[in-house]
Amino acid sequence: MSEPIRTVSEAAWPRVVIIGGGFGGLSAARGLARAPVDVTLIDRHNYHLFQPLLYQVATAGLAPNAIAAPIRGILHRQANATVLMEMVTGIDAARRSVLMGEEHVSYDFLVIATGARHAYFGHDEWERFAPGIKTLADALTIRQRVLGAFEAAEISQEPSERRRLLNFVLVGAGPTGVELAGAIAELAKASLVHDFRRINPSDARIVLIEAGSRILPSFPPRLSAAAQRALEQLGVEVRLGKPVTLCDAEGVVMAGERIAARSIVWAAGVAASPAATWLNVAADRAGRIEVLDELSVPRYPEIFAIGDTCASGSWDGKAAPGIAPAAKQMGHYAAAVIRTRVEGAPPPPPFRYRHQGSLATIGRNKAVVDFGWTRLSGRFAWLLWVFAHIYFLIGFRSRIVVALDWLWAYITFRRGARIILAETGGTMTEPRPVPQPP
Amino acid sequence: MSEPIRTVSEAAWPRVVIIGGGFGGLSAARGLARAPVDVTLIDRHNYHLFQPLLYQVATAGLAPNAIAAPIRGILHRQANATVLMEMVTGIDAARRSVLMGEEHVSYDFLVIATGARHAYFGHDEWERFAPGIKTLADALTIRQRVLGAFEAAEISQEPSERRRLLNFVLVGAGPTGVELAGAIAELAKASLVHDFRRINPSDARIVLIEAGSRILPSFPPRLSAAAQRALEQLGVEVRLGKPVTLCDAEGVVMAGERIAARSIVWAAGVAASPAATWLNVAADRAGRIEVLDELSVPRYPEIFAIGDTCASGSWDGKAAPGIAPAAKQMGHYAAAVIRTRVEGAPPPPPFRYRHQGSLATIGRNKAVVDFGWTRLSGRFAWLLWVFAHIYFLIGFRSRIVVALDWLWAYITFRRGARIILAETGGTMTEPRPVPQPP
Repeated sequence: MSEPIRTVSEAAWPRVVIIGGGFGGLSAARGLARAPVDVTLIDRHNYHLFQPLLYQVATAGLAPNAIAAPIRGILHRQANATVLMEMVTGIDAARRSVLMGEEHVSYDFLVIATGARHAYFGHDEWERFAPGIKTLADALTIRQRVLGAFEAAEISQEPSERRRLLNFVLVGAGPTGVELAGAIAELAKASLVHDFRRINPSDARIVLIEAGSRILPSFPPRLSAAAQRALEQLGVEVRLGKPVTLCDAEGVVMAGERIAARSIVWAAGVAASPAATWLNVAADRAGRIEVLDELSVPRYPEIFAIGDTCASGSWDGKAAPGIAPAAKQMGHYAAAVIRTRVEGAPPPPPFRYRHQGSLATIGRNKAVVDFGWTRLSGRFAWLLWVFAHIYFLIGFRSRIVVALDWLWAYITFRRGARIILAETGGTMTEPRPVPQPP
Repeated sequence: MSEPIRTVSEAAWPRVVIIGGGFGGLSAARGLARAPVDVTLIDRHNYHLFQPLLYQVATAGLAPNAIAAPIRGILHRQANATVLMEMVTGIDAARRSVLMGEEHVSYDFLVIATGARHAYFGHDEWERFAPGIKTLADALTIRQRVLGAFEAAEISQEPSERRRLLNFVLVGAGPTGVELAGAIAELAKASLVHDFRRINPSDARIVLIEAGSRILPSFPPRLSAAAQRALEQLGVEVRLGKPVTLCDAEGVVMAGERIAARSIVWAAGVAASPAATWLNVAADRAGRIEVLDELSVPRYPEIFAIGDTCASGSWDGKAAPGIAPAAKQMGHYAAAVIRTRVEGAPPPPPFRYRHQGSLATIGRNKAVVDFGWTRLSGRFAWLLWVFAHIYFLIGFRSRIVVALDWLWAYITFRRGARIILAETGGTMTEPRPVPQPP
């Protein structure tokens, strides 16, 4: 084995390696800012991504740099943190080493925060036709397909082909599917409506398919109903209670009915990163590691798994939800545990997830908010959603950029990022490095 | 042959087809806004690109959407204009038809405004190692290589490889090469300087190579000297009088000397689009069509070639330069000729290019400006450059976005677009559709 990559303090301090620069990994790194440890954060991208607004990049509302900030910039004042842009290929837990192809880094503590991708329930071949939306590359692929569909319809001479081009199908009615459906409806019926000569963009048909009995199943039924009414006002067709049984180049099939569509987005199901496979430890059906009370991995007290990588039974017996606040809380907690270990202090009490509320937006002046003690829908809920998302955006600059973009879009009904960047002809532009866990 | 694509007026009006949505093509379309003609503008992208600022996208100063505006949005109020996003594959001049694969569009007048790419002087194999910078995909490829070089150097364990990674070579010292050299120097020595732990980004070596005897050869010698001094103050090495004789994966060779570098950008030489080949008409060495006084193509009075597509001897016997104002003037002129023909009015006087001035920027507070009657360098020239570029940006929104981005960068020395988007591992992401003219 070659020499491990050396970091700042030349191994005088305990070495903490964090895999992943998402909400969980960054919180862990920041939580160790004043600890006597050497932090190395590894990510295959050079940026932290504000995933909750990814659907706006996909629907031409925001540019990629509005919701992505360089990890180096975020951590540049934290002297004990080194950032490496690399692809992790495995973990050698016996040697306490993170593998990155030919290179490796040694650790005393390891935090796995590698996140998740969408799961196709054993039908990975559907991904070509129905990409998920977890990365910037995903979002740009979807933007290319959605905007490209209107462009192709403007050229097409055949009525049936034109109809297929203007059909948009969203599979899965969690917050992502709902937000995408609303945003595509507004794009077609407001932003693009004067820009074409041979088609009418508002002829677009947007279908949201959900296998369960209502949309936004994690919200109270009353808010699910309010969100469905809001979507239907925008012209979205909501189809409940039937799972998709096939995706192909022509469209989707649900319960025997075929819907012809060129643009399909997959927003159903989650598969964790292959960390459980790397470590050969127990995982749930989605591949999430079943961690102990202090978020450490069974048999490896020096390894922590947080965010979408882990299943923690810390929320009234249920696993914490796969959302940013849960990942942040786990990152802070893992950092606290490491600090107490390094300092020889008693450990903190077991991790408990504190749910602060659920938000989902449908479109202009339309959102639902559930704080537990109060439940809202409509314009006030939408304003809460806007302020919450601007407030939590990392980076002073991104907050201003997004606030101005939204103000401009609100006033003009136009969209600031209608540039088709990807030119991939409909396949994912990003390599899929992770084999799905069994 | 299938039915041609029909446009707005169902062929009641004369049909004007414009190929290319750059400065020339857009000016031609706008010049026909009130003429009784049916305008169809075809571009393979959905956006107009403000090419003069492309180097800022390549060096992480601006996001793609800051300098790209949807062509549909620009023309959406022009009721006689249809926009098609398609790749033109040829021209059937006998049938007056523009070919786009299976589809075609008929014309009564045709304006060719397809622009240019960089020329490798018979060494197209160098493009892999030394991409040019003409499209957004080019700029994102270069951004990925430049930012990726610092990332790879931070990981590299080998001193010689680290040095090679931190060597940046620009070939050609026209405005593009000079602007890129200055921007990479500022990126390395100001924006990135606190963000790395194992390398010092200001160790980067930036080499600007020019085969001629001075940089910015289209400017007066005094300004060339001022620009060279400004570059050298930023730490750029300027190498004059020697052509590059080889580009490969290891770097470049100039006059027997090898400079090891992973990041090379080609900013030398121009090759026009294949329009001359499509029409089988005379062209100069760069492939530009030698047009008549009214910018029409010999033998085809209904076809006009403008901008970088044509060589017009209209500027004191020299061809008009390959810059945005020349393309705009030609677009307006071609529209005027078409209007007179449609209206049966006498033709306008032969086209004459009016040079308004030359501007190039080196970096913060450093630029050169040549108005003919006055020549400036330094801070005031730089402010002129800033205001001119903001003023000429198309789209109210882009102006504000770019102005705010620049203000932010000026105050903080940071860059707003440090996101590595392309993931292509170093090859061009964009297909090269045009065979080079002979």
